[in-house]
Amino acid sequence: MDATLSYLDQLIGAGLLIPTGVDGLYGRSGTFEDVICRFEALVTAEGGRDNPEVIRFPPAMTRRQLETSGYMKSFPQLAGTVHSFCGGDHDHMELLAALDSGEDWTKGQEPTDIALTPAACYPIYPMVAAQGPLPPEGRLFDVQSYCFRHEPSADPARMQLFRMREYVRLGTAEQVQAFRAGWIKRAEGIIGALRLPYDVVPANDPFFGRAGKMMKVNQRDQGLKLEMVIPVANPQPTACLSFNYHQDHFAGTWGVQLADGGPGHTACVGFGLERIALALFKHHGFDPRDWPTDVRGLLWG
Amino acid sequence: MDATLSYLDQLIGAGLLIPTGVDGLYGRSGTFEDVICRFEALVTAEGGRDNPEVIRFPPAMTRRQLETSGYMKSFPQLAGTVHSFCGGDHDHMELLAALDSGEDWTKGQEPTDIALTPAACYPIYPMVAAQGPLPPEGRLFDVQSYCFRHEPSADPARMQLFRMREYVRLGTAEQVQAFRAGWIKRAEGIIGALRLPYDVVPANDPFFGRAGKMMKVNQRDQGLKLEMVIPVANPQPTACLSFNYHQDHFAGTWGVQLADGGPGHTACVGFGLERIALALFKHHGFDPRDWPTDVRGLLWG
Repeated sequence: MDATLSYLDQLIGAGLLIPTGVDGLYGRSGTFEDVICRFEALVTAEGGRDNPEVIRFPPAMTRRQLETSGYMKSFPQLAGTVHSFCGGDHDHMELLAALDSGEDWTKGQEPTDIALTPAACYPIYPMVAAQGPLPPEGRLFDVQSYCFRHEPSADPARMQLFRMREYVRLGTAEQVQAFRAGWIKRAEGIIGALRLPYDVVPANDPFFGRAGKMMKVNQRDQGLKLEMVIPVANPQPTACLSFNYHQDHFAGTWGVQLADGGPGHTACVGFGLERIALALFKHHGFDPRDWPTDVRGLLWG
Repeated sequence: MDATLSYLDQLIGAGLLIPTGVDGLYGRSGTFEDVICRFEALVTAEGGRDNPEVIRFPPAMTRRQLETSGYMKSFPQLAGTVHSFCGGDHDHMELLAALDSGEDWTKGQEPTDIALTPAACYPIYPMVAAQGPLPPEGRLFDVQSYCFRHEPSADPARMQLFRMREYVRLGTAEQVQAFRAGWIKRAEGIIGALRLPYDVVPANDPFFGRAGKMMKVNQRDQGLKLEMVIPVANPQPTACLSFNYHQDHFAGTWGVQLADGGPGHTACVGFGLERIALALFKHHGFDPRDWPTDVRGLLWG
């Protein structure tokens, strides 16, 4: 690898990522996708033992759910709403005239009922709440989807559209805390076996604005968010996994209930799939055929 | 199955689809996803023999590419642009006040550089054009992504977010026409072996408005679009695959060039993955364990 090129330029040069002209939006090569596919199989081999309910949502949720979730309160700068043209022939002629003359043609776009998913677990909480109280043993889900965050960046590990694989646990405080603690150990096992250097550190979400500063401090002080960080493209390591304990936040937001009517607690572990693939390419090289034999065996064995 | 329930209600009752409150936006069960995964493997076993370049784009393209593609001219009603909040603390307070009072809080959302992908092959043409003239043998791609079309409907086979798997061929008129003809035969083989009733018929895209009527007639008369239709949820069968010959349309739009500098022709075959899964559940039942032995063998053998 040429040290004078940025890691993004190297990835593009190697054909692993394909530029589109917009920072944070890239095509992926077949090799890149195969690494993600094989890594996910490794995660499934571990997490599948707990017999989770497998659910896949498209990369979108309802706008109503985004509103209710409180995301626009905490992270308005990252959310994406989907807008469409809803006019007739005359409006369409105006749109095309604006397009032709290079004016802003998007003024007539109207908000649809759909918003992009900011985190793979977001559609799960309203779904569970709508299905009634949790059974005594709680519930466990395996989810994955593309997620959107509006934060254009030349850092390849900060994409606007990326995939997040998650396990989501709902139950009592004890159940979900045990789930989170267990997954920290499991993740250390998986990432260590892939020979990636890592650290698990307290963290916080990027809460918006002045009011968000206190929320960041609180989240960090209470140990509600831990991240597994791995060096990827920058001197500072990148958060590649996160382990989140939401306490009974989603009970308040959505009405997630225990069997006895008490507030349900939730926790999730999230794998940033593109970031993990980028870490593997960074530490083991751009051609998986040259990766260490034991790492290859784990992924393709 | 209860004939008094709609097919959508039956799918939801069986847990294969999960409602969100918005028509055309559903979660998928693990069983539903497994059927799509296995069907894709069947497609890959056939299409992989031609050694395509495998590329995966996120479910979005750049807004600039959507503009250049002509999609807003032909299908403005279906496109989705992604909008975000780009203000400061004060604007955020206004947004939250609007949310609280149930007013339209989306007025401050600004268009981002990103639009949702309307068809899986759309990001391929500008990518190829940017990479220079085609080699004499042309190029062949294997793509797949979630696609968005703003057409809310209670027909489960008309989702707003769905996956399209495609093979895309670029080359001379002869090369791409032979590709299309070959894939019609191959698709008949695959769908027939899955014991689904089908027909291949001339078709047209849903061009917008009065001006679009002539384009529909032209496309159909010239045989540029063929569809494989299968009965799914309605008395009329549903288009589950399409076979498209674009002539040199994308040469004009993007500058796709042959080695000799002439205009490149393109064609694609698209598999509507959710529609095919829905057809399999419709014809063989909601539990894949009960499907015909030969169909099971093809998918899980």
